[in-house]
Amino acid sequence: MLTIKNLKIPKKLRLPSWKFCLPLIATILLMWAEAALHQTTDSDPGEQLDTINTIWVLLAAFLVFFMNAGFGMLEAGFCRYKNAANILTKNLLVFAIATLAFWVLGFALMMGDSFLDVIGGLKGLFLLNEQGFSEYKTKITIPLKAAFFFQLVFAGTAATIVSGAVAERIKLKAFLWFSFFLVALSYPITGHWVWAPNGWLKQLGFVDFAGSTVVHAVGGMAALVGAWLLGPRKYLRKEDDKMVSRYKDDGIRVAIRPHNLSMATLGCFILWLGWFGFNGGSLLKADAEQISHILLTTNIAAATAGLTAAFTTSKLKYFKNKPELSMIINGVLGGLVSITASSAYVELSAAAFIGMVAGWLVVFLVGYFNKLKIDDPVGAISVHLGCGIWGTLAVGLFSNKDRLCTDNDIKIKTFIGICGTNFNGIPFQLVAQLIGIVAVLGFTFAFSWVTWSTLKARIGIRVSDEDELKGLDRQLHGVDAYHGFEKKEKISG
Amino acid sequence: MLTIKNLKIPKKLRLPSWKFCLPLIATILLMWAEAALHQTTDSDPGEQLDTINTIWVLLAAFLVFFMNAGFGMLEAGFCRYKNAANILTKNLLVFAIATLAFWVLGFALMMGDSFLDVIGGLKGLFLLNEQGFSEYKTKITIPLKAAFFFQLVFAGTAATIVSGAVAERIKLKAFLWFSFFLVALSYPITGHWVWAPNGWLKQLGFVDFAGSTVVHAVGGMAALVGAWLLGPRKYLRKEDDKMVSRYKDDGIRVAIRPHNLSMATLGCFILWLGWFGFNGGSLLKADAEQISHILLTTNIAAATAGLTAAFTTSKLKYFKNKPELSMIINGVLGGLVSITASSAYVELSAAAFIGMVAGWLVVFLVGYFNKLKIDDPVGAISVHLGCGIWGTLAVGLFSNKDRLCTDNDIKIKTFIGICGTNFNGIPFQLVAQLIGIVAVLGFTFAFSWVTWSTLKARIGIRVSDEDELKGLDRQLHGVDAYHGFEKKEKISG
Amino acid sequence: MLTIKNLKIPKKLRLPSWKFCLPLIATILLMWAEAALHQTTDSDPGEQLDTINTIWVLLAAFLVFFMNAGFGMLEAGFCRYKNAANILTKNLLVFAIATLAFWVLGFALMMGDSFLDVIGGLKGLFLLNEQGFSEYKTKITIPLKAAFFFQLVFAGTAATIVSGAVAERIKLKAFLWFSFFLVALSYPITGHWVWAPNGWLKQLGFVDFAGSTVVHAVGGMAALVGAWLLGPRKYLRKEDDKMVSRYKDDGIRVAIRPHNLSMATLGCFILWLGWFGFNGGSLLKADAEQISHILLTTNIAAATAGLTAAFTTSKLKYFKNKPELSMIINGVLGGLVSITASSAYVELSAAAFIGMVAGWLVVFLVGYFNKLKIDDPVGAISVHLGCGIWGTLAVGLFSNKDRLCTDNDIKIKTFIGICGTNFNGIPFQLVAQLIGIVAVLGFTFAFSWVTWSTLKARIGIRVSDEDELKGLDRQLHGVDAYHGFEKKEKISG
Repeated sequence: MLTIKNLKIPKKLRLPSWKFCLPLIATILLMWAEAALHQTTDSDPGEQLDTINTIWVLLAAFLVFFMNAGFGMLEAGFCRYKNAANILTKNLLVFAIATLAFWVLGFALMMGDSFLDVIGGLKGLFLLNEQGFSEYKTKITIPLKAAFFFQLVFAGTAATIVSGAVAERIKLKAFLWFSFFLVALSYPITGHWVWAPNGWLKQLGFVDFAGSTVVHAVGGMAALVGAWLLGPRKYLRKEDDKMVSRYKDDGIRVAIRPHNLSMATLGCFILWLGWFGFNGGSLLKADAEQISHILLTTNIAAATAGLTAAFTTSKLKYFKNKPELSMIINGVLGGLVSITASSAYVELSAAAFIGMVAGWLVVFLVGYFNKLKIDDPVGAISVHLGCGIWGTLAVGLFSNKDRLCTDNDIKIKTFIGICGTNFNGIPFQLVAQLIGIVAVLGFTFAFSWVTWSTLKARIGIRVSDEDELKGLDRQLHGVDAYHGFEKKEKISG
Repeated sequence: MLTIKNLKIPKKLRLPSWKFCLPLIATILLMWAEAALHQTTDSDPGEQLDTINTIWVLLAAFLVFFMNAGFGMLEAGFCRYKNAANILTKNLLVFAIATLAFWVLGFALMMGDSFLDVIGGLKGLFLLNEQGFSEYKTKITIPLKAAFFFQLVFAGTAATIVSGAVAERIKLKAFLWFSFFLVALSYPITGHWVWAPNGWLKQLGFVDFAGSTVVHAVGGMAALVGAWLLGPRKYLRKEDDKMVSRYKDDGIRVAIRPHNLSMATLGCFILWLGWFGFNGGSLLKADAEQISHILLTTNIAAATAGLTAAFTTSKLKYFKNKPELSMIINGVLGGLVSITASSAYVELSAAAFIGMVAGWLVVFLVGYFNKLKIDDPVGAISVHLGCGIWGTLAVGLFSNKDRLCTDNDIKIKTFIGICGTNFNGIPFQLVAQLIGIVAVLGFTFAFSWVTWSTLKARIGIRVSDEDELKGLDRQLHGVDAYHGFEKKEKISG
Repeated sequence: MLTIKNLKIPKKLRLPSWKFCLPLIATILLMWAEAALHQTTDSDPGEQLDTINTIWVLLAAFLVFFMNAGFGMLEAGFCRYKNAANILTKNLLVFAIATLAFWVLGFALMMGDSFLDVIGGLKGLFLLNEQGFSEYKTKITIPLKAAFFFQLVFAGTAATIVSGAVAERIKLKAFLWFSFFLVALSYPITGHWVWAPNGWLKQLGFVDFAGSTVVHAVGGMAALVGAWLLGPRKYLRKEDDKMVSRYKDDGIRVAIRPHNLSMATLGCFILWLGWFGFNGGSLLKADAEQISHILLTTNIAAATAGLTAAFTTSKLKYFKNKPELSMIINGVLGGLVSITASSAYVELSAAAFIGMVAGWLVVFLVGYFNKLKIDDPVGAISVHLGCGIWGTLAVGLFSNKDRLCTDNDIKIKTFIGICGTNFNGIPFQLVAQLIGIVAVLGFTFAFSWVTWSTLKARIGIRVSDEDELKGLDRQLHGVDAYHGFEKKEKISG
């Protein structure tokens, strides 16, 4: 069938409105400021830049950047074909938004010279002035811009985690605004607490190596609040031809199925690969012995988690005693999330254990959140919030004292005078971990609630019932992601 | 339904013809030559090889190689399902062809010791004699073979750009021959002008850091000539059951839609990742400070371009005021193309501006080329030629004098005595940029026109109407790329 | 259409059975052992660890890890949609299994201090005791854990090769058990012979640089035995409504077609990329000159093989004189497999020749194995076993004496007193290569036959006819990999 379109484009193709002129003018002003401020050499004479460390961190950053593709494939694959283009649009734009938000403000707040120890400074806006990061620069041996790039891809990860949980019903605009605020404000503030040289949680002894809490649980918490405020996906009830919640009052829910498990599996492999950068790069230097150890703990936890999830689902009637691919994928990811906080501090056997628990936890939590009628199309909350918390606690349970306490960035004496536990003392570290989890996630919860609620009141966060039924691709983007293929038309579930 | 095939293969499965024996014999002769010529150590005693630089450049080359997968997914995804296998065959073989063409001849022409300053030598054919690159080797601190590999993946990119614009109607053989000549002759000659130690455009002061013009606009120009000579895709007009141009006389065109936006988005992510290697590796050394800066300008331009494209389409009636995923993808790519020439020389804010313009430019140009009835199924001409030119001009508009003039490879004084502009003088650099663009693209236009025309006359470049209607996969490859799925049969548009 | 599911999950969601408690308890015991044994510093004082070498090897390992995604996409794409989730489940879990098997036992057997020169020691189980690798550690300049990681991704490759050849009819459990034993026992034993410092084949002069035999032919042989014992895929014969072999008695076979060539091509690109790590990393150090050479031989062989396969199929009536994408893909892979053994030792022209032969060989062998009624859905046996043997022989035919004999790891004098051949002597090296191929593949054949047969007798290796007809996804996993798309229902072929 042929469709005809009118070609009269270019009339309107001037810069289309004043809204566009604001960023344009801002950018031009910024160019002048930058030209005025620019120092010929970015680096101070006293700095010790290490090329090998830089290459390692940049390699790791590339892998983490590539996780955007992984999340895109995973999330789109887990949803219905009718929303695929919408999800991919979100996942493509969210990294662009994160780039701007982190450049404009986020990085300055997170790693800039500190203001009352709970927030970074504003001297580093737009990376205009590298002097605004004087404390942070003493801690790294790579260029500030390399560190920015690495931190940026982490911030982008936190934002993209949200995308999956709110998929198939969120307004694109609301999601993008939320992502902007998350990366510009909330993520950097809590990140400052834990990772900035003088963050208060760091000083207190809270340890989160590569971000089980700082990145994943934060993303998962923002996702939880979003999914909760959005409400569950709807289906077309035949009896009265109305769109109603997929969670019925009788405890039964309408099954909604992934449209492309091949894509989702590709996403899982890309994410697994990306995690080698996520954890391996978080040392911010190329210590051969340590990064090798980190890669092994990371990989072993992923392996045991995936196998545990496969085993668990094949023993559960709910899954008809069949190994469930989407659960195995989420199991692997749960294992990776859970080893993130401790990958540099635990032995291989502990990594295996942490992964096993995570593989089971994901299966359990996916069921649990469904019971709570929190609708998470891709299981992001279970994977990132649930296993993020588990992984952060695991630092307190399984860390090897020698590994933990020789980490330059961690004070030998934490607030309770003991660093690490490894079965040789009461796990005081666990207390620090609990405090950190509560503080970071408490803040993120409050921020997310306020932001999502404000967006809901101002511009609305949920698409119309008609858009949801007919598919966001057709309704909001005017496309069919799989043009030419015959599809089941009434794909509510 | 079952299809039965006869198994009588192996009779014919000797080497099938004399055509095959020619390359076989050539290869054997080459082996003898190589055995005779081979020096035990490839490296001269005086050379300073730097392992760290080599690893960085090879890492970058891997990322650029992977862009082949990105282009494959992007181009196939943007076309119709019935031509997917054909496009992927092209994209797979084109890198193989480029490898041979660049090994046999291209690299020698491009970087070999120079002959009248406008063309490289022939002493470096088949990389048999490293002495043929004596000037080039003084400029690099990595093994010649590493430099070859990096330059090869760039040359392959130029060739694969063409693939998208001529898709869905070109003869495979014609495309492969054109690619061979492009990579063996045309690309190396213009590349020599700009990037070889004594290229005349380099000496004149023309600057193109990583190839907005040398790679992208060249590929885009070859694509433009190809798409123009091929003519637009056709559809089956119902009234008279004839295949006619999709551009109707009344200014209306038949819409032809992407068959898989998920694949195309994956392609975009892979290309974005690949660009970190494209620009980051083009220093050919691992200067920590500089590569970090380059990665940031690259990423920021991609981000602002993607957002601008999203914003622009959502303000245009033509796109029904909806953010259009395929335009966002092309916007991101346009931003990346446009920052390529200047990524090492401009500040972050200028990168943001360059990207914004590119994001709008792509949307405008796609409409414009349609108006010209140049049919480009994937928007390659707009992205690579259009934004390539814009990016090359941007060097003259926004370069920071300090960054530009400290680049070892650029003479402090260009032909007009001034290096860089950065608002502190009349932009003479812009003149050099214009000369370079006209020279390189003029040559490429002429070469492409002669080559495509010759191919058209000799072997034909366009498939038959029947093949185009029924799909190249079924007709020319005997396959269905998505066997088992129900498809809309008459998918002309 | 809506499907309703009952939500009563969590009752059963305790750890589901005693089977699960065994590994849990084992892991906890292991944690105690590790805590007791752990040395604060992993590295001995005398060790010379090289960070640059480590980064290079880890980068290579990442690329090889990513080959899991490549194999997943390739294998799933080459099979029918109804088995896609099953194949992807296999490919995801097989690396998890390989991780455990190689950590628990495999690596100790392969590289541990030797026991009678034919098998590694048991002192290195679980990597608990780095002292168990004292000989191996003197040969490497990277941390043992980095070497483990690199060897692990190789072992995983061998296992995942099997997956494709037994696809569409194997029981998941049987495949996973076989993979475990392959990686824990068989692969490490033969690997020890060739790659361990005192392996008997190494001492004899057998050379296999990156594993044409050690990895690919081993995987291919295990695949061959598996596919043979499984029997060919079946189709529903209309006459009597029975499931019968696709190979009919009259020499005709039922065609079974790939369901997604786009995915398969993506897989090919990922594998091509991965091979740069596979071969480039196998030096286990970052010698700039050598790795650059290796990358070029690798790439050139892939290119000539792909082109040869395209040319060959377009000259054969069987392929209707059309270039066949799946054959081109397998051609590229065959070229890569065949250059693996010799990539460090041959000149570029020889690489071109080796690839040309491989591209033709794959086409020939795919036909040949079909004639033998060995059903290999993805051509893995032809690619990995066939081209693996060819590549290993090529070391004896084309190696440059200078390159081969300066390799530190190869004795200047092999058992027959001559190292390398390169046209300057009778190819005695070829004899060593033949001995090695026979020994390694003989052992692997025996091991595979015993293991597959035992599994067949104990738990069965083939799914039921009904499962095969209706698709493993629906029957064994309860999913549809492409939910929402209309498919041809009776897709036997």
